[in-house]
Amino acid sequence: MAAFDELDSGLLAPAWVGTRVEALTTDRAFLQAMLDVEVALTRAQARLGTVPGSAVDTIAAAAVAADFDLRELAVAARASANPVVAMVEGLVARVAAADPAAADFVHRGSTSQDVLDTAFMLIASRCVRVIGDDLARVAAAAAALAAEHRDTPMAGRTLAQHAVPVTFGLKAAGWWQGVNRAALGLRRVADVDLVVQLGGAAGTLAGYLAYAAEDVDPDDYVPRLLEAFAAEVGLAVPVLPWHTDRTSVVELGWALATATGALGKIAIDVRALSRTEIGELAEPAAEGRGGSSAMPQKRNPVLSALIIAAAQQIGPLAGGLSQVMLADDERPAGAWHAEWQPLRECLRLAGGAARAAAELVEGLRVDPGRMRANLDLTGGLIVAERVAAALTPLLGKAAAKRVTARAATAAATGGRGFAAELAAAGELAGKVPAGLLDSLVDPLRYPGAAGTLVDRALAHRRVEKR
Amino acid sequence: MAAFDELDSGLLAPAWVGTRVEALTTDRAFLQAMLDVEVALTRAQARLGTVPGSAVDTIAAAAVAADFDLRELAVAARASANPVVAMVEGLVARVAAADPAAADFVHRGSTSQDVLDTAFMLIASRCVRVIGDDLARVAAAAAALAAEHRDTPMAGRTLAQHAVPVTFGLKAAGWWQGVNRAALGLRRVADVDLVVQLGGAAGTLAGYLAYAAEDVDPDDYVPRLLEAFAAEVGLAVPVLPWHTDRTSVVELGWALATATGALGKIAIDVRALSRTEIGELAEPAAEGRGGSSAMPQKRNPVLSALIIAAAQQIGPLAGGLSQVMLADDERPAGAWHAEWQPLRECLRLAGGAARAAAELVEGLRVDPGRMRANLDLTGGLIVAERVAAALTPLLGKAAAKRVTARAATAAATGGRGFAAELAAAGELAGKVPAGLLDSLVDPLRYPGAAGTLVDRALAHRRVEKR
Amino acid sequence: MAAFDELDSGLLAPAWVGTRVEALTTDRAFLQAMLDVEVALTRAQARLGTVPGSAVDTIAAAAVAADFDLRELAVAARASANPVVAMVEGLVARVAAADPAAADFVHRGSTSQDVLDTAFMLIASRCVRVIGDDLARVAAAAAALAAEHRDTPMAGRTLAQHAVPVTFGLKAAGWWQGVNRAALGLRRVADVDLVVQLGGAAGTLAGYLAYAAEDVDPDDYVPRLLEAFAAEVGLAVPVLPWHTDRTSVVELGWALATATGALGKIAIDVRALSRTEIGELAEPAAEGRGGSSAMPQKRNPVLSALIIAAAQQIGPLAGGLSQVMLADDERPAGAWHAEWQPLRECLRLAGGAARAAAELVEGLRVDPGRMRANLDLTGGLIVAERVAAALTPLLGKAAAKRVTARAATAAATGGRGFAAELAAAGELAGKVPAGLLDSLVDPLRYPGAAGTLVDRALAHRRVEKR
Amino acid sequence: MAAFDELDSGLLAPAWVGTRVEALTTDRAFLQAMLDVEVALTRAQARLGTVPGSAVDTIAAAAVAADFDLRELAVAARASANPVVAMVEGLVARVAAADPAAADFVHRGSTSQDVLDTAFMLIASRCVRVIGDDLARVAAAAAALAAEHRDTPMAGRTLAQHAVPVTFGLKAAGWWQGVNRAALGLRRVADVDLVVQLGGAAGTLAGYLAYAAEDVDPDDYVPRLLEAFAAEVGLAVPVLPWHTDRTSVVELGWALATATGALGKIAIDVRALSRTEIGELAEPAAEGRGGSSAMPQKRNPVLSALIIAAAQQIGPLAGGLSQVMLADDERPAGAWHAEWQPLRECLRLAGGAARAAAELVEGLRVDPGRMRANLDLTGGLIVAERVAAALTPLLGKAAAKRVTARAATAAATGGRGFAAELAAAGELAGKVPAGLLDSLVDPLRYPGAAGTLVDRALAHRRVEKR
Repeated sequence: MAAFDELDSGLLAPAWVGTRVEALTTDRAFLQAMLDVEVALTRAQARLGTVPGSAVDTIAAAAVAADFDLRELAVAARASANPVVAMVEGLVARVAAADPAAADFVHRGSTSQDVLDTAFMLIASRCVRVIGDDLARVAAAAAALAAEHRDTPMAGRTLAQHAVPVTFGLKAAGWWQGVNRAALGLRRVADVDLVVQLGGAAGTLAGYLAYAAEDVDPDDYVPRLLEAFAAEVGLAVPVLPWHTDRTSVVELGWALATATGALGKIAIDVRALSRTEIGELAEPAAEGRGGSSAMPQKRNPVLSALIIAAAQQIGPLAGGLSQVMLADDERPAGAWHAEWQPLRECLRLAGGAARAAAELVEGLRVDPGRMRANLDLTGGLIVAERVAAALTPLLGKAAAKRVTARAATAAATGGRGFAAELAAAGELAGKVPAGLLDSLVDPLRYPGAAGTLVDRALAHRRVEKR
Repeated sequence: MAAFDELDSGLLAPAWVGTRVEALTTDRAFLQAMLDVEVALTRAQARLGTVPGSAVDTIAAAAVAADFDLRELAVAARASANPVVAMVEGLVARVAAADPAAADFVHRGSTSQDVLDTAFMLIASRCVRVIGDDLARVAAAAAALAAEHRDTPMAGRTLAQHAVPVTFGLKAAGWWQGVNRAALGLRRVADVDLVVQLGGAAGTLAGYLAYAAEDVDPDDYVPRLLEAFAAEVGLAVPVLPWHTDRTSVVELGWALATATGALGKIAIDVRALSRTEIGELAEPAAEGRGGSSAMPQKRNPVLSALIIAAAQQIGPLAGGLSQVMLADDERPAGAWHAEWQPLRECLRLAGGAARAAAELVEGLRVDPGRMRANLDLTGGLIVAERVAAALTPLLGKAAAKRVTARAATAAATGGRGFAAELAAAGELAGKVPAGLLDSLVDPLRYPGAAGTLVDRALAHRRVEKR
Repeated sequence: MAAFDELDSGLLAPAWVGTRVEALTTDRAFLQAMLDVEVALTRAQARLGTVPGSAVDTIAAAAVAADFDLRELAVAARASANPVVAMVEGLVARVAAADPAAADFVHRGSTSQDVLDTAFMLIASRCVRVIGDDLARVAAAAAALAAEHRDTPMAGRTLAQHAVPVTFGLKAAGWWQGVNRAALGLRRVADVDLVVQLGGAAGTLAGYLAYAAEDVDPDDYVPRLLEAFAAEVGLAVPVLPWHTDRTSVVELGWALATATGALGKIAIDVRALSRTEIGELAEPAAEGRGGSSAMPQKRNPVLSALIIAAAQQIGPLAGGLSQVMLADDERPAGAWHAEWQPLRECLRLAGGAARAAAELVEGLRVDPGRMRANLDLTGGLIVAERVAAALTPLLGKAAAKRVTARAATAAATGGRGFAAELAAAGELAGKVPAGLLDSLVDPLRYPGAAGTLVDRALAHRRVEKR
Repeated sequence: MAAFDELDSGLLAPAWVGTRVEALTTDRAFLQAMLDVEVALTRAQARLGTVPGSAVDTIAAAAVAADFDLRELAVAARASANPVVAMVEGLVARVAAADPAAADFVHRGSTSQDVLDTAFMLIASRCVRVIGDDLARVAAAAAALAAEHRDTPMAGRTLAQHAVPVTFGLKAAGWWQGVNRAALGLRRVADVDLVVQLGGAAGTLAGYLAYAAEDVDPDDYVPRLLEAFAAEVGLAVPVLPWHTDRTSVVELGWALATATGALGKIAIDVRALSRTEIGELAEPAAEGRGGSSAMPQKRNPVLSALIIAAAQQIGPLAGGLSQVMLADDERPAGAWHAEWQPLRECLRLAGGAARAAAELVEGLRVDPGRMRANLDLTGGLIVAERVAAALTPLLGKAAAKRVTARAATAAATGGRGFAAELAAAGELAGKVPAGLLDSLVDPLRYPGAAGTLVDRALAHRRVEKR
C-alpha cells in the first residue's frame, strides 16, 4: 500500500500546488471532515438525550484521521462506491476497542450521504473563506492601481487593434469590478448554499427517529436535531434534506468558476501587455520564477499562465457539474458519485488562481513610459473617432467619418501624418485651422470619462465596505 | 434571399418551439431590441440636451424591425463580425430618407457592444420574467402535490433499489425546494446582473462626450447619461461599463442552467416512475400527445423527455459561456462573439423546460394504489433498516444488522417471508413476540419524519411568499 | 404562423451565416432529407417486392418539403418530442389525396428514429464534404505559405515572450499539419460513422418484416433491405441498428470540434501577430470588412474573430454530446432529443470556420519587414539559448547558462548591448574573440532546422496526396 | 513536506481507485516517465555521436524517480508553471554528484515541453493498452451474452415505456457494437496520435543542433535524431513538432470519452433493469460489495454507479480539452498548462470504467424468467404494432392503427384483454378468426430479426478478429 500514499502530490497541478486551499482539501482533510461529521452527529444526538455523553467522548477520541490507513479506505470505497461505508467500519472498530457499548452509537440512524455531503460543505466553507480573503486582496490591489493610475494614458484595444485611448486606472478599475462581483457571488453561496445534510437513508430521517425514543414526536425531534447538528458543524440548516436537490453543489461550482474567470481576465490582460513588443506590464519578479529550461533570457509570465490554466479548466468542470442535478429517485446511482472529484478540483483551481492573482496584482509592474510610447505608435489614428466627431458639425456625420477614414488610411500607408492628411482634405479646405487638427489628433486629449469612471468605482467600493 | 427567411423554424427544437420565450428571442425580436436601444440612446441624449427632440421622433419612427430585411442584415454581419454595424447603416439610411439632419444623431458616440449587450439584457429581462412565472407555477403545483400527498406512502429508492419508505408528498416537497431555490437564484440575477451597457468604443464614453458640448464635464454628464439611458430601457445601472467583465452573461447562463436542472430532476423522477413496471406516475394526457409513429399503444412521457433534453443541453452551454470571461483588452476578438448563440439557446432551453414543467406538474397523474403495491413488493425488506434499529437494544448494533441482513437475504431468495425468517433466527429466540415482528416489517409504520418535513417546506413557502 | 417563418435568420451567428453548410442545414433542408429518407425506404421495399412501384412514384411526388408548412410541423413536434410523427401525417395526407392506396405504404414498418437519424447522417455527409473541401483549401494555402516563407525569419514566442527565432514558413507548416490531421480525422468519420439507421420500433426491424410477406425469412430479407436502403440514400450499412449506440454522433461532433480547433490555432496566431504593436500579419482586405461602428481607422481581424468564436463554442457542444451515449433501453427519453440542435450547430460552426479560414489563409498578408524588425527588438537576447550552447564547451553548461543569463539581464536593463555585456564577462576574458560574439547574437544565424522541417512537411504532403 | 506525500490517495475517486491505470498514472509514474525521456534523449544523441556513452550511463543511473522528493518538485513547479525545470535541476545535481562532466549532457538542447509531452504520450500509450485489454474483455463478454441469449425474449423499451419485444441477445449485441467501435477508435489514436515530441525551445530543434557538431546538416541530423529518440521511447515519429498542434491530446481525450460512454450505455441498462420492480439483471455478487451504511437488505449496483459516474465526468473534461487547441504562438501561456490534470483524469476515468465494466459484464446475472414475466405485463399490448400491421391488409393502414389503438386503450383501462377487445371491434366483425387474434397478441411471436442481427454481429466479430 505504501507506494500509493503518494498517488498524487500536485506534480501536474502547478495552478494550485502548495496553496492553502490545497491543504484544506487533501484526502486526509476529507477523511477528518467525515470523522468530524460523525462526531457532530453523535454530539447532536447526545444534546437531545438519545446518545449517552460517555459514548460521545469515546467516539470523538477515536475520530482521528491520522490513525486511519487512507489508502486502504480509498481502495475499500470501490466496493460501496463511496468512502463512508469503510470509514464507518473503521471508526466502529476503533471505538469498540475502547468501549464496545459506545460503538453502537457511531453513525446512528445515518447514511453515507449525510456524512459525505456535510463534510464537503464543511470543507467548502473553509475554502470559500480563504478564497474570499485572496479575492479581497486582489480587489484591494486592483483598486489601488486604479487610484494610482487614474490618469495614466494608454492605448485602448479592441479586437486586438488600437481603438481609442484609455487609462490604466480604468483598466484596473474594470479588474476590480469583475473580482468584486465574483466575491459577492461567492459570499451569496456561502450564505445560502453551504448547509448541513441530514436526511437518513431516503431523506425521511427515519433512521434517526428509529434510534430515538419509541414515542418520539418528529415535529419536535427533527427540528431540534437539525439545529443541534448544524450548530455542531458550524453550517446553516436547510429547509429539507437535499440528497437529490443539488443546487448547492452546482451554485458553488458556478461561483468558483465565475471567480476564476474574473481573475483570468486580469491574467489575460497581463499576458497580452507583457508581450515583448508591448511591454507595458510585467509580472512581479521573484527569485527563480519564470525561468525556462532552455532560454536564459526568459522571464515567463508564470502567474498569468497558472491563472489562465485554472480558468480554462474550471469552466468545463462547473458546467459538467450541472448534469448531477438530474438525480434519480431519492439518491442516484452515478450522478452523486460524479460530483466529488470535479467539485474538489473547482475549489482547488479557484483557490490556486486567487492565490496567484493576489501575488500578481499586488506586485504588478506598470511601465507608463511604454504605455505612452505605444499610444503614440499610430500617429494619432487612435483618436480617429474623436476627429470624426469634431468634424461632424462641419461636414455632417457621414462625410466626417468618410473624410477621417480616408485620411487615416492615407496616414497608415503613406508618409505624411494624420493631421497633415486631414489638412489636405478638400472637404476641410479653409474650414479648420491647422493648429486645431494637431490638437485633435493628440491622444492625450481624448481620455473620455476614464477619470470619472475610476472615481465612480472607488466611491462604490468605499460605500460597499462601509 | 427569400429562401433564408425560414432558416430555422424550431423543427429540431421541440424543447422550446412555440413557447413565449421563443417568441421573445427571435432574430426579429433581437433586431427590434437593438433598434429600441438606439432610440433609447437618442432619447437619453435628448433629455440631456445634446440631441434635438425632433431627431428623436424621426429616429423612433424609423426604428421598426419589420421594415428591415433581416436576412440581408444577418449576412452583412459577417463582414463586421456583429450585426450592429449593418443595422446602424440601415437605420441611418431610413432616418436620412425622412430627415437628413436627424441621421447624424443615430448611434451618436456609441459602439456596437453598447447596443448589442443592452439589447441582450433587455431581452433576457423579459425572458427571465416569463421563466420566473412558469417556475412559480411549477413550485405552486409541486407544493400542492406535497400537501395533497403528505401521507401517501411509496417506496423510497436509492441507487435504483428500494431503500426505505417515503411519501409522495415528501418527494414533491423536494421538487418544490429545488425549483424554489432556482427561482431565487434567477431573481438575484435579474436584480444584480441585468444592467445597461454604456461605454463607447473602449469603455471611456469618450464618443458620447465628444458629441456633447465642447466643455462638458464628465463627472456631471456621465452619471446623468447612464441614468437617463437606463430609465429609457428599463434596466439598472452598472458601476462601470462591462465590455470585458462578462459576469452578467455568465451568471445569467448559470442561473438558467440551474433552473433547468431543477426541472430536470422532476422529469427524471416522472420518467422513472412512469415506467411500465412501476406505473406510479403518468404525464397529463392531451389530445395527440405522446403518440408514436409506430406503436399504437404508446403514451410516451414527452414532456419529461423535452425537459430532460433541455437540461442535458444547457449545462455544457452554460459551462462553455464561462470561457468568455477570458476577454482580451477592451473588447476581445472572438470571446464576445462566442456568447450570443449559446446565451440565447440557454434562454430558450430554460424557457421551454419551464413551460413544459408547468404543464407536467400541474397535470401530473398520481397512482397511490400502484405506489402501495410497489411498496409491498419486497415483503417488508424495505424496512430492514427499521428492523435492525429495533433489534439493536436486544443484540447490539452489529449483531442486529447481521441478523437482519441474514433474514433479508433468506427472505429474498427463499419461500418464507421476512418476519418468518426473523422469527427463525436463533439469536432472537424467545426475545421478540411474533406479533411485534409482523408490525416491525410493515412499511406503513416507517414514514420517518416525512410528514414533518412536508409541513416544514410548506411553512417555509408561506413565510417566503409573505 | 407567418411571424415565425423568420424565427432565426442567422442574425446572431456571423460565424456561419451565408455559408454553404448553413444552406445544407436549414430546417427546410432537414425536412427534405426526412422526406427523402421516407422515399428511400419505400423504394428499398419496392426493390424487394414488398411495396408496389406505383406507390413509390406517388410518395416521391408528394415528398416535397416546399409544400409543407414548416412552422406548423415544428410546433406539432412538441407533442411527440420529435418532428417525424407530424411529418409522416402530413405526407400520408398528401399521398392519400393523390392515391389513397399508396398512403398505406408511407413509413411502412418504420419508426421516427430511423428517419431522423438517417436524415441527419445524410445531411452530415454533405456538410462533411463541403467542410473537407474548405479544409483542403486551407491546407493548400498553408502549405503554399510554408513553401514561400521557408526562410523568412521571425521571432518565435513562448508564453508570450520572445523565445528563439523561427521562420514564418515553419509556423505555416504547423498550421498545415493541424488542419491536415483534422481533415484525416473527419474523413475517417465519413468512412466509419456516417451510416443509415434502420431498426424499426426497438431495433429488431419487426415492423419492416411484419409488412413484408407472411413467411419472410429475416436472414434473407434484412440484409437485402439494409443494402437497398443504404444504396438509395447513399450511405454505408452499419452492423446493427444504433438507436442507443451513439458513437457516430459523438465521433462526428468530436471531429468537427477538432477541425474547428485546428483552424482556431491559425486564427489565434493571426490575431496576435496583427496586433498594432506587432503588425507581422494582416487579414485580407475586402470592401466593407473589418469596419467599426465607431472608429474610422479600424481594420478589425474579423475572420479570425469569427473562427475563434466558432472554436470557443464548438468544444462545449461536442463535449456535451458525449452525454447522449448514456442512452436508456432501446431509445431514451431525452438523450436522443438532446442531440439535434447541438449536432447541427457543430456542423454549422465547423462549416463557418472552414469557410472563413479558407479566405483568411488564402489572402493572408505577410510582412517580412515587420517580422525582421521585431526579431531584432531584443538586440540578440532572442538567441541567448544559442549563446549558452556555444559557451558550454568553454565554461561547462551551468556556468555558460549563468554567464549568458547575467549578460542578458544586464543588456535588458542597461545601456550596452548583449554582445558587449558578454564580452565584459570576466569568465570569458581572453577566451572568445569579439567578432565571434557579434556573430553569436545574430538572430539570423539561429534558424535551427526550420527549413528542414518545412521540407519534411511538404514532402509528407506530396506523399499523402499521391 | 511529509504531510503532503499523501495529498490524494483516491479517496474521492472510487471510479478508478486501485486499478492498473491508476498505478500507471501516479505522480511518481509521471516523474519516472519524464526521467526516462531525459535518458532517451541522451541515448538518442549518443547514438548520433553527440553525447558520450559514459555520460549516458551516469545519467541513466541517476534517473530514478524514487530518489526524488516528489512533493518538493511539485511545489517548485509553481515557479516555472511546469514540473520539468525543477526535475532537470534535480537530475543535473544527481548526475554532477557522480560525474560533473556528465551533467552537461542532461536535457541537452531540449525544452520542458519536449520532455513533458513525450512523457505524457508514453504513459498514455501504456494506459491505452490496458484500457484496450479491458474493452476486449467487455466486448467478448457482451458477445458471449449475445450468443447465449440470442433467443431470450424481453420487453423492448423506448421512452421508458414497453415498445415491442426484443431479445436480451440483441441488447447484448448492441453493447458489443458500442464497445467494439470505441476500441477501434482508441486503436486509431494509438496508431496516429501517440508520437514523440521533439522540437526544442520553439519547435526548430535549434538547441539540439547547437549542441551537435558545428557544421551539422539539419537535413541529415534531424530525421536521425527523431528516429533514434522515438526508438528509445517506443513511440512513433510525427511529421513536425506539435507544441501548438494539440490534435493528439484532443483526439486521445475524445476517444477515451467515447469508450467510457459506450461502457456507460451498458451500465445505464443494468441500472434500469436491476430496479426492484424490473429485476431482469443483477450485478455480479462479491463479498462486501454493494452494501449500504444504513440498509442491511441493499445490494446496490455499485459497478454501474461507478461506470456512470465516470461517463458523466469524462465528457466535460474531454470537451474542455478542445479549448487547448487555441494555443498561442510557439507555446501558449495557459492552454498547455490546462491539459495535464484533465487529460490524466480522462485516462483514469476510462481505465476505471473499463475495469469495472469487465467485471460487470463477465459476471452479469440474467433472469430470463423475470424478462418473460415483464414481457407479459401488458397482456399483449407490447405487440400492438404487429396487430396494426396484420390488420392493415384488411382495413387499410390508418383504420388498422385506429382500431388497434382503440382496443389497446380499452384493454389498458378496462377488464377485458387485448385480444378480446380486438375481437369486439365492429370493423373486424367476421373478418378475423378468434384464434388468430390470440396468436397475434403473443409477444413471443414478434421477435423481428433479433436473431438475425445477433448472428450478424457475431459474424462481423469473427471477421474482425481474423
